[in-house]
Amino acid sequence: MPPIGVTKHFNYLVLGGGSGGIASARRAAEFTNISVGLIEKSKLGGTCVNVGCVPKKIMFQAAHFCEEVKDMTDYGLQFEGPFKGFDWGHLKPKRDAYIQKLNGIYGTNLDKSKVELITGTGRIIGDRKVQVDGSIYSADHLLIAVGGYPIWPQIPGAEKGITSDGFFELETLPKKTVVVGAGYIAVEMAGILQALGSEVHFLIRHDKVLRNFDEMLSNSVTEELEHSGITMVKNANVKAVKGSKPNLTIETEEGHVIDGVDCLLWAIGRAPATKDLGLENSNIKVDKKGHVIVDDFQNTSSPNTYSVGDVAGKFLLTPVAIAAGRKLAHRLFDQGQEGLKQDYENIPTVVFSHPPIGTIGLTQAEAEAKFGTDQIKVYQSKFTALYHSMTDRKQMTNMKLVCAGPEEKVVGLHMIGRACDEMLQGFGVAIKMGATKKDFDSVVAIHPTSAEELVTMR
Amino acid sequence: MPPIGVTKHFNYLVLGGGSGGIASARRAAEFTNISVGLIEKSKLGGTCVNVGCVPKKIMFQAAHFCEEVKDMTDYGLQFEGPFKGFDWGHLKPKRDAYIQKLNGIYGTNLDKSKVELITGTGRIIGDRKVQVDGSIYSADHLLIAVGGYPIWPQIPGAEKGITSDGFFELETLPKKTVVVGAGYIAVEMAGILQALGSEVHFLIRHDKVLRNFDEMLSNSVTEELEHSGITMVKNANVKAVKGSKPNLTIETEEGHVIDGVDCLLWAIGRAPATKDLGLENSNIKVDKKGHVIVDDFQNTSSPNTYSVGDVAGKFLLTPVAIAAGRKLAHRLFDQGQEGLKQDYENIPTVVFSHPPIGTIGLTQAEAEAKFGTDQIKVYQSKFTALYHSMTDRKQMTNMKLVCAGPEEKVVGLHMIGRACDEMLQGFGVAIKMGATKKDFDSVVAIHPTSAEELVTMR
Repeated sequence: MPPIGVTKHFNYLVLGGGSGGIASARRAAEFTNISVGLIEKSKLGGTCVNVGCVPKKIMFQAAHFCEEVKDMTDYGLQFEGPFKGFDWGHLKPKRDAYIQKLNGIYGTNLDKSKVELITGTGRIIGDRKVQVDGSIYSADHLLIAVGGYPIWPQIPGAEKGITSDGFFELETLPKKTVVVGAGYIAVEMAGILQALGSEVHFLIRHDKVLRNFDEMLSNSVTEELEHSGITMVKNANVKAVKGSKPNLTIETEEGHVIDGVDCLLWAIGRAPATKDLGLENSNIKVDKKGHVIVDDFQNTSSPNTYSVGDVAGKFLLTPVAIAAGRKLAHRLFDQGQEGLKQDYENIPTVVFSHPPIGTIGLTQAEAEAKFGTDQIKVYQSKFTALYHSMTDRKQMTNMKLVCAGPEEKVVGLHMIGRACDEMLQGFGVAIKMGATKKDFDSVVAIHPTSAEELVTMR
Repeated sequence: MPPIGVTKHFNYLVLGGGSGGIASARRAAEFTNISVGLIEKSKLGGTCVNVGCVPKKIMFQAAHFCEEVKDMTDYGLQFEGPFKGFDWGHLKPKRDAYIQKLNGIYGTNLDKSKVELITGTGRIIGDRKVQVDGSIYSADHLLIAVGGYPIWPQIPGAEKGITSDGFFELETLPKKTVVVGAGYIAVEMAGILQALGSEVHFLIRHDKVLRNFDEMLSNSVTEELEHSGITMVKNANVKAVKGSKPNLTIETEEGHVIDGVDCLLWAIGRAPATKDLGLENSNIKVDKKGHVIVDDFQNTSSPNTYSVGDVAGKFLLTPVAIAAGRKLAHRLFDQGQEGLKQDYENIPTVVFSHPPIGTIGLTQAEAEAKFGTDQIKVYQSKFTALYHSMTDRKQMTNMKLVCAGPEEKVVGLHMIGRACDEMLQGFGVAIKMGATKKDFDSVVAIHPTSAEELVTMR
């Protein structure tokens, strides 16, 4: 019987059905006699499945194809007529249907795992106690995994724009797009829209995008964006949005005026979805930006209450949320796993820019600050992939290894170029194991690939 | 002054200007006061550059594009008219021009490295003594790196076919091709020709291709070949080739008759180019197949005489020849490197099949034989890559980890699927370092990629 006034009591209750929450809930339910509930107000799968990684990657692939159309004719492929462009109306419904299928699979998987899905908006009303509509659920352990959402700026007319959420609702290709922001979401969206045929103006506050990435990447990707035909508007701070769709005018403090815009895309950051969650009813502390504060074990400041994923604000990446969520489930419910925690060092990341970026570990600047400049040796290789030997269009591949100490331990690997997205994972294993430059060199190269450059640098 | 009767004496003389020979020669020339000569009778770059890896990869890319044309329309790309097919006559001259450029670069690099290029056919006439036309060259150290060539079968009419060398001379797309062989060259060529539009009949002596690969790969790639539209003719031993081009008839001992064939491609193996080399004048021993016999340090049975690459018969791969050649140069001419040798364990290899194969280490069968079945744990994942969520055409991705012992050391990694070609190198570093399953699992996955499956297997 549940406690008085409580509809149902669980051993483990998860608030939020995104990647982290679902992974943690399903893993917990594998252990004997652990009852698990999961509360989700919207579609299962969270940001990743619905308005993030998955539909983004599909759009990226379409964009990638658009880039390659001319390459194909360079390779000798012949078409009866010219390339007509990208049909947004063809792909969007297919993409939506696929996402819907995934939503269904997530639901089925919860069922199979015996995780009870509670549909509705959860609000914390006490320690490990959550209200959903008229029902109250309590738990021995509560996980907060409610994710985040894109930020809107506080300027007049901001609401005339969209965020990445809105990008996935677009039913047609915008003719003229302004992208505002300089992070990886801005870079990915701008690249996709440009390749698909929109005229993209990319407004950044400084002179480069991805300024917290290794300088080589930041420089290279900014160059590739310009090279792709995007109009980079640097040192630009938007002050107002005027007019109405499809004829918006964007004005900056610096005097830029961009008019005739039918799509204004804000990609200026994300915030945790902690407002209106009732955290104050359970003494769960948040930081200035609203992220749930957790320790190394995902513990919040409230006993037996935890948080993983975007809402906890560390590495906003699906697999990080999944890994942290699963490890937490093991720590709580698996025998002898009490010390288990997620390691946040050396997390490999890919940006689906054109060409894609792969990066892990310290930037050169970070490594130099940490170990001292004289302790750092950097290996670089810049080349045109064999693929481009036959194409008029050229994209550079640029790779960098940051090595520390006399043993030349690889503390950072940064690359941008064709195929870098699938190239990184294995190097991630090696670097996580503590690979040195010598370890890289000891493996035979695979020819002809781009990846082989990483093991033959001098 | 050279010895009497000798045109010139070198510290290091390299016979053969392919990947291994050039790499070894240039590396040796980096060391102080080491004079280096290199003898090549034909184009610089050897098999890899002229009739192997490089032109093959270019044709593979064209073929890959042909496979993707329909996918592109599935992704919403629109063309005014239908796909007309592949124009062989467009790509071939471009490919040739690119190879010629590479030949030139190899020549320039030899110049820059102060390696003296001797053009002509070298014949060994004594210990470390080679005759080229009217000149005689001697050396303190002699490297034999003359490579190999494709084998022809001993059956009536065999000469009406071509080998992989001839494939690269083709000026037009064959209408109907018979490929004979079951190794990786046969697989690659058959896949390329089919995708480019030829009607391919693939004759194999048993029921699968790549029979020395892990069984999963052997099965999967055979299925994909069939799936691609190639006619697999199994248990077929060619006994005669009749008629004349473009109307050859191929007959097998088993009673198959394939007629109307304009291209018969023998891909039944390669042999070392040791005949007519004069090896007998220097007591350099060869094995039954004619490969120069070397020890772990690339030493032949003749003092101060070495061999690397295809002619030595171990792992017929460009980067192996390069690595072995460079290591030899260090061992001979670099201070304190006397113990250096090439490690032939855990060499990662890619086959450019459709989709590509990546493989390293022991097959499951080899691992079970070596460690005992009860010591082997196998992890597998078979899935359709996200790419194919939008395409009618489906290619499977199939991955296998072979782990040994209680610590689950990864002793084999085998995969076939989209992007596996660029995926393997980093895992190669990790496996060479002795990675365990736990090491694989300790790195955060990169989402959405195919590579992430390798670090999330259960």
